[in-house]
Amino acid sequence: MTDPTPQPLVRKDGRSVDDLREVTIERGWSAQAEGSALISFGNTKVLCTASFTNGVPRWMSGKGKGWVTAEYAMLPRATNSRTDRESVKGKIGGRTHEISRLIGRSLRAVVDMKALGENTIVIDCDVLQADGGTRTAAITGAYVAMVDAIEWARGKKFIGQKAVPLIDSVSAISVGIIDGTPMLDLAYVEDVRAETDMNVVVTGRGLFVEVQGTAEGAPFDRTELNSLLDLALVGTAELSRLQLLSLGETA
Amino acid sequence: MTDPTPQPLVRKDGRSVDDLREVTIERGWSAQAEGSALISFGNTKVLCTASFTNGVPRWMSGKGKGWVTAEYAMLPRATNSRTDRESVKGKIGGRTHEISRLIGRSLRAVVDMKALGENTIVIDCDVLQADGGTRTAAITGAYVAMVDAIEWARGKKFIGQKAVPLIDSVSAISVGIIDGTPMLDLAYVEDVRAETDMNVVVTGRGLFVEVQGTAEGAPFDRTELNSLLDLALVGTAELSRLQLLSLGETA
Amino acid sequence: MTDPTPQPLVRKDGRSVDDLREVTIERGWSAQAEGSALISFGNTKVLCTASFTNGVPRWMSGKGKGWVTAEYAMLPRATNSRTDRESVKGKIGGRTHEISRLIGRSLRAVVDMKALGENTIVIDCDVLQADGGTRTAAITGAYVAMVDAIEWARGKKFIGQKAVPLIDSVSAISVGIIDGTPMLDLAYVEDVRAETDMNVVVTGRGLFVEVQGTAEGAPFDRTELNSLLDLALVGTAELSRLQLLSLGETA
Amino acid sequence: MTDPTPQPLVRKDGRSVDDLREVTIERGWSAQAEGSALISFGNTKVLCTASFTNGVPRWMSGKGKGWVTAEYAMLPRATNSRTDRESVKGKIGGRTHEISRLIGRSLRAVVDMKALGENTIVIDCDVLQADGGTRTAAITGAYVAMVDAIEWARGKKFIGQKAVPLIDSVSAISVGIIDGTPMLDLAYVEDVRAETDMNVVVTGRGLFVEVQGTAEGAPFDRTELNSLLDLALVGTAELSRLQLLSLGETA
Amino acid sequence: MTDPTPQPLVRKDGRSVDDLREVTIERGWSAQAEGSALISFGNTKVLCTASFTNGVPRWMSGKGKGWVTAEYAMLPRATNSRTDRESVKGKIGGRTHEISRLIGRSLRAVVDMKALGENTIVIDCDVLQADGGTRTAAITGAYVAMVDAIEWARGKKFIGQKAVPLIDSVSAISVGIIDGTPMLDLAYVEDVRAETDMNVVVTGRGLFVEVQGTAEGAPFDRTELNSLLDLALVGTAELSRLQLLSLGETA
Amino acid sequence: MTDPTPQPLVRKDGRSVDDLREVTIERGWSAQAEGSALISFGNTKVLCTASFTNGVPRWMSGKGKGWVTAEYAMLPRATNSRTDRESVKGKIGGRTHEISRLIGRSLRAVVDMKALGENTIVIDCDVLQADGGTRTAAITGAYVAMVDAIEWARGKKFIGQKAVPLIDSVSAISVGIIDGTPMLDLAYVEDVRAETDMNVVVTGRGLFVEVQGTAEGAPFDRTELNSLLDLALVGTAELSRLQLLSLGETA
Repeated sequence: MTDPTPQPLVRKDGRSVDDLREVTIERGWSAQAEGSALISFGNTKVLCTASFTNGVPRWMSGKGKGWVTAEYAMLPRATNSRTDRESVKGKIGGRTHEISRLIGRSLRAVVDMKALGENTIVIDCDVLQADGGTRTAAITGAYVAMVDAIEWARGKKFIGQKAVPLIDSVSAISVGIIDGTPMLDLAYVEDVRAETDMNVVVTGRGLFVEVQGTAEGAPFDRTELNSLLDLALVGTAELSRLQLLSLGETA
Repeated sequence: MTDPTPQPLVRKDGRSVDDLREVTIERGWSAQAEGSALISFGNTKVLCTASFTNGVPRWMSGKGKGWVTAEYAMLPRATNSRTDRESVKGKIGGRTHEISRLIGRSLRAVVDMKALGENTIVIDCDVLQADGGTRTAAITGAYVAMVDAIEWARGKKFIGQKAVPLIDSVSAISVGIIDGTPMLDLAYVEDVRAETDMNVVVTGRGLFVEVQGTAEGAPFDRTELNSLLDLALVGTAELSRLQLLSLGETA
Repeated sequence: MTDPTPQPLVRKDGRSVDDLREVTIERGWSAQAEGSALISFGNTKVLCTASFTNGVPRWMSGKGKGWVTAEYAMLPRATNSRTDRESVKGKIGGRTHEISRLIGRSLRAVVDMKALGENTIVIDCDVLQADGGTRTAAITGAYVAMVDAIEWARGKKFIGQKAVPLIDSVSAISVGIIDGTPMLDLAYVEDVRAETDMNVVVTGRGLFVEVQGTAEGAPFDRTELNSLLDLALVGTAELSRLQLLSLGETA
Repeated sequence: MTDPTPQPLVRKDGRSVDDLREVTIERGWSAQAEGSALISFGNTKVLCTASFTNGVPRWMSGKGKGWVTAEYAMLPRATNSRTDRESVKGKIGGRTHEISRLIGRSLRAVVDMKALGENTIVIDCDVLQADGGTRTAAITGAYVAMVDAIEWARGKKFIGQKAVPLIDSVSAISVGIIDGTPMLDLAYVEDVRAETDMNVVVTGRGLFVEVQGTAEGAPFDRTELNSLLDLALVGTAELSRLQLLSLGETA
Repeated sequence: MTDPTPQPLVRKDGRSVDDLREVTIERGWSAQAEGSALISFGNTKVLCTASFTNGVPRWMSGKGKGWVTAEYAMLPRATNSRTDRESVKGKIGGRTHEISRLIGRSLRAVVDMKALGENTIVIDCDVLQADGGTRTAAITGAYVAMVDAIEWARGKKFIGQKAVPLIDSVSAISVGIIDGTPMLDLAYVEDVRAETDMNVVVTGRGLFVEVQGTAEGAPFDRTELNSLLDLALVGTAELSRLQLLSLGETA
Repeated sequence: MTDPTPQPLVRKDGRSVDDLREVTIERGWSAQAEGSALISFGNTKVLCTASFTNGVPRWMSGKGKGWVTAEYAMLPRATNSRTDRESVKGKIGGRTHEISRLIGRSLRAVVDMKALGENTIVIDCDVLQADGGTRTAAITGAYVAMVDAIEWARGKKFIGQKAVPLIDSVSAISVGIIDGTPMLDLAYVEDVRAETDMNVVVTGRGLFVEVQGTAEGAPFDRTELNSLLDLALVGTAELSRLQLLSLGETA
């Protein structure tokens, strides 16, 4: 990572460049879902639920494998000015599709579908309040919800006592370059100013699941890319620790 | 009201026939909206936001009058089993339309559009968790959100210091007949068993805004209708008191 | 009912406050449908057809019960100025959904689904000309169409000779308060001026199936509500008589 | 025309091969539209309305020319078995599109858009009952509705006293070859058996506006094509006469 | 045909009135489809593919007959100015529907569905570049693609060695009257000026499958119709020869 | 890059791990668009057009800046088995949205919107044949089309003679890890087997615009990520050279 020491407090909210915002995870928020978590990254709040159903879609049936999929959406007034509902517009926007697919891929990366058996987990991530990093909060919270849904299913014997459907944990964080400085976990006001913006999905063991870097302002070089990846690994290591804490486990 | 004394504890959750469930109103839940409230009627939780914008749709422009409209929706896992998103289906269902329209009419009934001036308030009621009575909780919470949005607008001088856009308060409750007994504020397990189901919207002064009674099982007679209206007035009087408490006023 | 004698002729078309408009029912209008009626309430004309099919949707199969559903729509030039077709807009509006659901519920309230057996009746109510009260005319005409569809099915032995699927008849009327006076069966020019508007669905035996009262202008009190219900019962009693006449029966 | 004398009564309904079904035109059926006609070709019944509005769509504005367009639809139970509504399906089928476009082109062919001025006529043809030939009945009835809408507009001075927007009349008929015999005005049972099916739109002066011949069974030769055109001219000449009668004019 | 000799070079591109534009057929253009052809009529270029699948839609199953259907579409910049994608608009336009249906009917007219057996051929005609006559080029190219798909299927034994699914060939051409002169194969600049425009689909044996004549400017008489049909037969005879050449056969 | 020498010919098509497939660019393929290129990466063929229009969408007007956007789509039979058209399904899939957005961002990264002025460029990338790498071929071809559209606009004086709207060139390539070996430019059969799949968008100067790496099979470590980036830079340098050649320039 490039040395951030000359600017110890460059950020509006007083954070250092490698600080996460305050992260809270309210595990089991929902009385209805098999697993759930209300996760906050600062003012970003995402309600993640995991719906477990025994069986898989017909086209997957008989293969002895499970399925995990995800849907992401924002409440109309999660943002500073109201956005129209996609249900009212009658179609889902490109951004929503893109994030839903990202969440689904990220969670599937840590699931052993054979161990899950012919069962389906649908993850719903609904952004109640948005202040940057909604997709990374969603992935991080969804993992916690999924863990609980799987344990619920084990209790119901939909999954065997010895099956290990989860081969790793997964969390995600955004990083970006602002005025030439790489920073961790961008809030909305930072995100809109970033020259480069990257979302990184990392397993508990520190392996990459997704790396999505985009030059919003100017293209970036290899050194900048490396600095951003360094920062992201710092952030996801901390998120991984918080997930374990929330789940009552220790790293 | 028909005398409920012979069955002092007919309800699963221990309530008397004329008891509301526990009602809580978290006013100002959202950091983004001009007005907001997270309201609970027992396990039913609805996030209500009021978005205030200066100006009206073009077709209303120049008449010196404001506009209030509402949209209602449920998160996919608000319910016991997951329902598909209306955005994914590409169309809004009849029930959603019906409730959105009811909420809008109910709030407009207590707004003086001339005093509101050429301003628009959009109410969003998103059900985070559903256990019966979501539309009545939505109306009751939306009123609180609307009050705050109007006061916000007064602070911004979009509304004059002396204008009185709110001519009354409004709340709503469900009532129904179960096994021949009229009951107040039906939880989901009660709602599905009700022979007759009625949603009643009442102003703080005790006048009716909407009366929607439906025979789900058997048609009802005038006496039953009267019993249900009696109960509804008991419930809305209490809700009206709780709205005032939440707003820091006294009745 | 409040005494209307002081204003014997307050209405533009010369009716007293408790007069229906001229009601005509052309039973069997359609050469294609199993049951049909072209009903007029004054200038409001609705073509109601009842399509009977042996069998039920798959999700209802094997329960020994039937299904009745309804769809309502308006021709684009039923109204004074042309409205766009919902098929062209690609979606159904909230009002259409709301009325379709009301018609379906109203008819189901008088059908014994077990006696109907595993058969489906789809009611279509298409407004050819609109002058207020289209939903109430639709319900009233749909009942006549449904009776004939059931008799057709009995002839085809889809329903047993002794089965009694219809447990009552059903009709509907609008009532409203205009300039403080409760009136029966509002024409369009009255409807737009009404302070309170109510649609009431009543069985032949005089029991309520639906009571939908809405304060369009000012909230209403218990006395007004009672006056409106009184008027509605007068109107539906007369409609019930006309249904019987049309069906060749006597009350 | 090929000589039909050897089979004087080949048709189920007793018609000769060159007979139209009974045609009736109820001019002015609608109390709402500027022009209207309920037309019957035997059991086929189409309600045609013409909605006149002063002005043209923005993209046509300022060119001194008018616009005529048409929409065709069928009620769900116009046919022998119920078809789903296009509004419910959320999209318009190819057949509906095709016929709407045909009706629009046919009417525009007899309108002088400069003489019409910057005014718009929207034709709606709604099939109340279908027994073959719905598109030809629609064109024939729509012409009558359009005449009345134009005269209404002249009365309102939207069109000058001396302007002659209609340069000819227009009507349409179907013809087809059944078991090798050309026949006029096919009823539904004939239409489904036809080897070749043709819809022909002809002006009052006997000129062709549209000729749409389709080999449903076997391709057809030039002689058959000529026989069908002969028959169509017989039919449209008679329809043209009936249009004039309906309009109170003489040929 | 009216004598074109007085105007030997009336057309912008130097063609005589009865000349086709240069026609090229790149058979087997696609490496993926069972049959394909990239056909050009001058600057009009259409990629036609034929997708063969063993089996038929469920509703056709068990009748021993096959199915052929077609879809037509234009790339957004096939035309001189860009048109919005139908996928983006969320619905298919009337013109697209109309042409897709025409292509399907035209191809089915030369297929013996019993000889095809329970197999399905889906034709896709995508206009890469448009300069008039896209539907006629599509039909002409689609026939070539279909021939190859059928031979592919014979090789795979989905069709018997002796089965003869193709009972004739089929091609199509546009003709029109411009400034009173009938002309063959209209380019776009001619098409927009044509008073009458006709698309004619003809089999290799010279029989008509479709005749679709439309008066764009002025209605046409019988003589003009005959001249257009004469020209169309000249054009389709030549196209039929080119199809055979492309398929390596001789007429 | 990890040393590929032990497996000089691991790939089915005979390529080394760091070989591109044969790339061809047919610049100016379309006679209609302001800029166009038909690009092939082996059997993957994408038609890229750039539509230049003077002016910007209303919401961008008056800012002195231009706009570049892109749409990607596949012909239904571009793939080995036919896929349904998105226009027929009535909605655009997530993958299509995702790729359209990627192409748009990639091109905007090399455009100086102020130098472009208030002009709009719409890029259409239609996949005529798909064999892996369609999005990277699309970006690479779209750049060539965009260069020509900008030069066309300069000729028309929509862009000043000295304006430099293009600040760099841009191309893209896929890389992936198959059986533990990083490889360049994956064909479809390789893509489906890849454990990790990455699309990298790079400017002519070698800076990153987008890095999108996804663990399809197993998460990847930092070393693998670096190997993939190394390979991608080799590939995009070669593509950049081919773009210049196609444009008649030298590097």
